[in-house]
Amino acid sequence: MLNEHMLFLGRNRSEIRELFEYGKTLTAQGKQVCDLTLGNPSTPTPNWVSQVLSSTLENPSVHAYTSAQGSLRARRVIAKQLNERGTTCFSPDGVVITCGAAAALCGVIKTLVSSENTEIIALSPYFPEYKVFTEGAGAKFITVGFCGENFTPDIIALKSAVTKNTHAVIINSPNNPSGKVFIAEEITAISQVLFAKEKEFGHPIYLISDEPYREILFSENKLPFIPDFYKNTIICYSYSKSLSLPGERIGYIAIPDQICAFNDLYAGFLGSLRSYGYVCAPSIFQFMIENFKEVYADFSVYESNKNLLANGLIQLGFTVNDPQGAFYLMVKAPDGDSKGMSEKAKELGLLIVPADTFGAKGYLRLATCVSHGVARDSLLLFEKLAKIYGLI
Amino acid sequence: MLNEHMLFLGRNRSEIRELFEYGKTLTAQGKQVCDLTLGNPSTPTPNWVSQVLSSTLENPSVHAYTSAQGSLRARRVIAKQLNERGTTCFSPDGVVITCGAAAALCGVIKTLVSSENTEIIALSPYFPEYKVFTEGAGAKFITVGFCGENFTPDIIALKSAVTKNTHAVIINSPNNPSGKVFIAEEITAISQVLFAKEKEFGHPIYLISDEPYREILFSENKLPFIPDFYKNTIICYSYSKSLSLPGERIGYIAIPDQICAFNDLYAGFLGSLRSYGYVCAPSIFQFMIENFKEVYADFSVYESNKNLLANGLIQLGFTVNDPQGAFYLMVKAPDGDSKGMSEKAKELGLLIVPADTFGAKGYLRLATCVSHGVARDSLLLFEKLAKIYGLI
Repeated sequence: MLNEHMLFLGRNRSEIRELFEYGKTLTAQGKQVCDLTLGNPSTPTPNWVSQVLSSTLENPSVHAYTSAQGSLRARRVIAKQLNERGTTCFSPDGVVITCGAAAALCGVIKTLVSSENTEIIALSPYFPEYKVFTEGAGAKFITVGFCGENFTPDIIALKSAVTKNTHAVIINSPNNPSGKVFIAEEITAISQVLFAKEKEFGHPIYLISDEPYREILFSENKLPFIPDFYKNTIICYSYSKSLSLPGERIGYIAIPDQICAFNDLYAGFLGSLRSYGYVCAPSIFQFMIENFKEVYADFSVYESNKNLLANGLIQLGFTVNDPQGAFYLMVKAPDGDSKGMSEKAKELGLLIVPADTFGAKGYLRLATCVSHGVARDSLLLFEKLAKIYGLI
Repeated sequence: MLNEHMLFLGRNRSEIRELFEYGKTLTAQGKQVCDLTLGNPSTPTPNWVSQVLSSTLENPSVHAYTSAQGSLRARRVIAKQLNERGTTCFSPDGVVITCGAAAALCGVIKTLVSSENTEIIALSPYFPEYKVFTEGAGAKFITVGFCGENFTPDIIALKSAVTKNTHAVIINSPNNPSGKVFIAEEITAISQVLFAKEKEFGHPIYLISDEPYREILFSENKLPFIPDFYKNTIICYSYSKSLSLPGERIGYIAIPDQICAFNDLYAGFLGSLRSYGYVCAPSIFQFMIENFKEVYADFSVYESNKNLLANGLIQLGFTVNDPQGAFYLMVKAPDGDSKGMSEKAKELGLLIVPADTFGAKGYLRLATCVSHGVARDSLLLFEKLAKIYGLI
């Protein structure tokens, strides 16, 4: 008489969380472990955030309920920031402040599911919880593969995956797990497919842009602003990574003024979040957004860790990808068995996540948002692993 | 191609929220308004909470992801507190820390819904969002009436409402909207019905005890600890009211060690919250629980407001109930038309919520968690209302 689907999700944690919990147990036992599992930023939150939190102590009304969609002041700040990023117009009335990007994605997906036939497409590699959120909302989760080592989207596969039941495509750039940044040409190609399919089927196909890593870009990389390419874009954002506060759960949904069915979508987001029990986003962090300073956490360690690990792994004979942002690196299992490699690494005290459930079979994901020390120590363990695989 | 149910929920806000937003608009226009709609506590959060928040500023790791079920330290504190309340045993492994009681209720209800035939019963009067959470999870929402002016549960009606499809009954004491505290005899009577029905149908019928107001008790009133009466009790709690921080979204689910299907329930809670996008409860407030002091917000204003309003309204010729806790008072519409009375009050700048959707037809709910000044001013407006109704 219980919900078997929910029991399954509770019993079978994501592989990331499973390894993360294992690492915590080892650490609690005083054992040394190099944990490259979870995207838990190692860099502190910027000073201005602490100052804003401090100022709330004199202002008890900060802890009160806000409107369900979030404080108007905070939504004004967000709309202004989005308007500065491109030529597309956003207003505060198109913003819903949420308990992080996960809540934002859930609110959006639930809104877009009109029946059990609804299909939501994710471009591989993708964050595995997209599947959980989509199936939890009662829709079908469809994936589209990639081409080559650098995870270029497979446009031909996308074209044949979109059906009359496709209500949305999820894109995540910079990408978790690959660190790929989608370039303008790729976004144009995706948009052209969706424009044509919208015309063919006579209804909008939304592009859900999941953007928690958008500020974390390496070197010269630029991030194209997706709504400027495709007006039916729904942005889901989180401050978890940009401000190093993933546990606090603060983010937003934003839709441009010109999006198809603006009012219905916005009502749907509020209804979906309401039915999921999201009364409002944590008010102290809404106050933080009201007082936003354009100063992010110091991301430099992510790039130097990425370089250290990528170069080190290549020298050891492993194959790695070339991330342009975010804080993950992909390594190929030499024998194609990513779960086996994760197990072998675990025995050495090195925790790395098989990326098969991310739609990248044979790869493993390394979170590089650790301290320099952990990155260095893990290279020593990778050396042992290279010997096991006969690479050196 | 959108989800019509979610659009409906988004377009038709709860009457509480609708009036609250209206009041905010008036206030923004500089107009005077006596807003008795929302349970937004007027008393500040206790000093120790501010001190704990302050101490996090030196500890950036506070903002990291926690385990999905919440920090072990915080769960230990919660289990210890529950164990001190009665003879029933709770362990940290039976606690899930959530984004407030709404998330807790959603996680519990979703777990208990095995098919569209599942029925969840609420004892009237009840918090209207129970219906939203239950129907959102795909089950049927059934209500059971009350007897008399003091909202005594109708045990005979409960007995006939429980069917083989009933998976849970929701009880809320001290009650929103009535302020009723269920006495031991009433809980015993409810338990006896459920024991008999469990035996008859051969499966557990859970009692969901929604307890956000449990610390707010007037005078000599005592709160029976429900799990001591009925082992298949699931506690849903929020710190919103006890610590005056409703916007921050922190609470928990707790199940006793002896509950039927302990492991399945716990897995279901985690799975349900995961599928709804709850990654973890806000970590800074989990840290607050870890450092919990048994000092609550100062509730004295709620009782004095209740007395002021109840006495004043009786003198004006209105009929009110006798709340034993929480921070609401019920007033009867003299002509039985609560919506009409809410409209008439609104024209005077007095915002009070019709309680028909709370299962209390003909009543209105007054939130007494306002300042003394607002309570006094609203009595002046009630005087005008009494004249309109020809009571004075």
